[in-house]
Amino acid sequence: MDASPDSLAPAVAELVAALPSGVVVATADAVEKYRFDWTHDARAGHPAAVVRAENADHVVATMRWATSHGIPVVPRGAGSGLSGGALAVDGGIVLSTERMRAVEIDAASRVAVVEPGALNVEVKRAAAEHGLWYPPDPSSFEMCSIGGNIATNAGGLCCVKYGVTTDYVLGLDVVLADGTLVTLGGKRVKDVAGLSLLKLFVGSEGTLGVVTRAVLRLVPAQQPPATVVATFPGVAAAADAVIALGRTVRASMVELMDHSSINAVEDHTPMGLNRDAGALLLIQSDAPSAARSDEVAAAVAACEGAGASEVFATDDPAEGELFVRARRLHFTAIEARGHVLPEDVGVPVPQLPALLAAVAEIAIRHDLEIPMVAHAGDGNTHPAIVYPAGDADAERRARLAFDDIMAAAIALGGTITGEHGVGRLKAGSLEAQLGPDVMALNRRVKAALDPHGILNPGSFI
Amino acid sequence: MDASPDSLAPAVAELVAALPSGVVVATADAVEKYRFDWTHDARAGHPAAVVRAENADHVVATMRWATSHGIPVVPRGAGSGLSGGALAVDGGIVLSTERMRAVEIDAASRVAVVEPGALNVEVKRAAAEHGLWYPPDPSSFEMCSIGGNIATNAGGLCCVKYGVTTDYVLGLDVVLADGTLVTLGGKRVKDVAGLSLLKLFVGSEGTLGVVTRAVLRLVPAQQPPATVVATFPGVAAAADAVIALGRTVRASMVELMDHSSINAVEDHTPMGLNRDAGALLLIQSDAPSAARSDEVAAAVAACEGAGASEVFATDDPAEGELFVRARRLHFTAIEARGHVLPEDVGVPVPQLPALLAAVAEIAIRHDLEIPMVAHAGDGNTHPAIVYPAGDADAERRARLAFDDIMAAAIALGGTITGEHGVGRLKAGSLEAQLGPDVMALNRRVKAALDPHGILNPGSFI
Repeated sequence: MDASPDSLAPAVAELVAALPSGVVVATADAVEKYRFDWTHDARAGHPAAVVRAENADHVVATMRWATSHGIPVVPRGAGSGLSGGALAVDGGIVLSTERMRAVEIDAASRVAVVEPGALNVEVKRAAAEHGLWYPPDPSSFEMCSIGGNIATNAGGLCCVKYGVTTDYVLGLDVVLADGTLVTLGGKRVKDVAGLSLLKLFVGSEGTLGVVTRAVLRLVPAQQPPATVVATFPGVAAAADAVIALGRTVRASMVELMDHSSINAVEDHTPMGLNRDAGALLLIQSDAPSAARSDEVAAAVAACEGAGASEVFATDDPAEGELFVRARRLHFTAIEARGHVLPEDVGVPVPQLPALLAAVAEIAIRHDLEIPMVAHAGDGNTHPAIVYPAGDADAERRARLAFDDIMAAAIALGGTITGEHGVGRLKAGSLEAQLGPDVMALNRRVKAALDPHGILNPGSFI
Repeated sequence: MDASPDSLAPAVAELVAALPSGVVVATADAVEKYRFDWTHDARAGHPAAVVRAENADHVVATMRWATSHGIPVVPRGAGSGLSGGALAVDGGIVLSTERMRAVEIDAASRVAVVEPGALNVEVKRAAAEHGLWYPPDPSSFEMCSIGGNIATNAGGLCCVKYGVTTDYVLGLDVVLADGTLVTLGGKRVKDVAGLSLLKLFVGSEGTLGVVTRAVLRLVPAQQPPATVVATFPGVAAAADAVIALGRTVRASMVELMDHSSINAVEDHTPMGLNRDAGALLLIQSDAPSAARSDEVAAAVAACEGAGASEVFATDDPAEGELFVRARRLHFTAIEARGHVLPEDVGVPVPQLPALLAAVAEIAIRHDLEIPMVAHAGDGNTHPAIVYPAGDADAERRARLAFDDIMAAAIALGGTITGEHGVGRLKAGSLEAQLGPDVMALNRRVKAALDPHGILNPGSFI
């Protein structure tokens, strides 16, 4: 059965003929699994076909074809996005890079040259074979692709010390809307020749071009970390500890779990976390071994000074990893409680208590459970709105809470998205953050690079 | 005496009337010192007037006026640029931000909120009062402005570990060509809402807008560094040491001086450097104190393993600073030898020996002295073409060498500018690096943001 409406059939046939056998799929069954990303949002359209590109030439041919027919293209990595940035559109093409998986390490230049379909974990593993490290570590690092990481400028747990994806992108090959392949940057740590177009494509969520190759900066392998776990009577005290710590030590992890998240994890997998705690901070130091105890002492002092009720420290990486596992279990534990609408708002670090208070108030107002974790050192929080699957009224309340949380972040000088991207789920709230002039600027740049608007239409611009 | 041609007099009178007394200057004497940046390039034009803006409102008024009259505007910071990015144009306006100097530290959010005319050193000092640090450290940090640093995406000596200016810019207020003031980003460490326009303005050399305020990320104060100085028989061995070191240690400084630079410095100020050395590496570790000796040991081992003839290490920051001073003296020492045309090319680190060999060959071919220092850990080199002031033939040969060095860098997969910018001096070589498609992309973005081309015309786009 053909998924494409009759009117598109001749165009799709042309695309099938232009690419090797098996690259284009257009049966309804095959297309179905490319309609959604992780959000499973009902607004996903029915694409006319899916291109599973094997190399840059296939991407070039697809974009040329799309431009000549005016057919929309939704680029897609591993489909693990949390903001609906890769939802298919009706009558469009999904351009998947899942088959472009090559990873090559140039140890002397300390870079990885990767295709966009390679998973984050595959780049980390290849680098580790040379004693090197690719730092960005979104929680989904074992299943998300580098192409998706670049599209969203993904963050993670270690970015409090090591920065986000854009800080590691030295070069990109990008296929533009009209099929032109451009190479930006390269194996050069510093390069200011021309406008910073490289940085413009990072975080552009498939709206400006399709990445077909990336040159990623690597650093020496991370040292095994020491870990501090502290519980606090409330979130405000935990935030005070984060601020005090940030002024003296560059910790490699500063994660927060709120009372509700701690209990959700304990319900799912008893780990011995203190169910009475108002908040838990998980701090790691990866300083060179001789200095680690100094950083741990500073972290313990920051927590105690801020009124921690309990502080535990360990030099044992395996013991520390148990707590990191508890933190990473948050999402799984929450998913076991119902359908989850994941939030990703950020505020200046001193505003964390105000944001968490606002989220607690929103949870009560809409009668919802909203457990939360945060990359606290960066002020980036993930309130997770949980509601019973199939409960239409709860879903309606969840969407109201989703919007209210974004509004609260904006009111506190924050952002609607720290690392997941805007996608379709947050497109309606973007102007409230940016204002009309910056929205207009976004549209001007989009129009300059994709004048026919065929790249990821319906996304944030 | 009025500097502006008669035809511009009515427009300039209108600008004078629109701004407070003293903000606009148009006498030939007053205007003269705003014509040049450090390059003193003869192509500098004669501007109709200079606006010494005191606040964002003055910048808005100037840009509205400039758009309504179609008059070009050259934004200017401290005038310390090395690529001719702030050379005045005939009949245009120079828009100086030298009077916008406010610096405010928000220690809890760990940011500095600064006006563009503030000097880099002033931001460092204000941060230090709170135990915080603004890392980017161009060699000119005592005289260059933050606005200029943002315009060029300036680097420096510590960026091998701490990154460049763009890595520290969290927010910008920018006045666009038509006078619209937009606010991008803010006091948020992570923010992926909308296109990365913030990053697009960093490094745009005044071609897209005028920065009127920046929010800069600060980090905890740097630890006092330990220092390793190693001499090598030749540059190739020094480059091997840099590569070996980079795989194990994140040194906070990895500077190289070649034979000619060592001798130029010794000629100027005898510091006891080894005049016979083929190359000198200056490495620092700012790891927490307990771990510093491990990093020093690793640096010593990397140098010895690569064939260093002499290696000296010291824990004494004052002793280390003497060597940093010798390195920073390079430019002063070179200037004492004649007129200097400073280069700023970069290559992948493993290509450093090939680049240095190419520069040596170019020096011989054009009968010139080209001493060189390099931020070796980043592959970013500064060959300094020296020739006798007033010698027209030598100047001609210097310009040929300048172009040849850029061509050599491009041929080695490098860049024509690592941190100084393209400006007017390198505009003619930009397409050779980027290629026609990427040049066209630069022009499309420029046209989208500055449709009448009034911002810094004659610069790289």
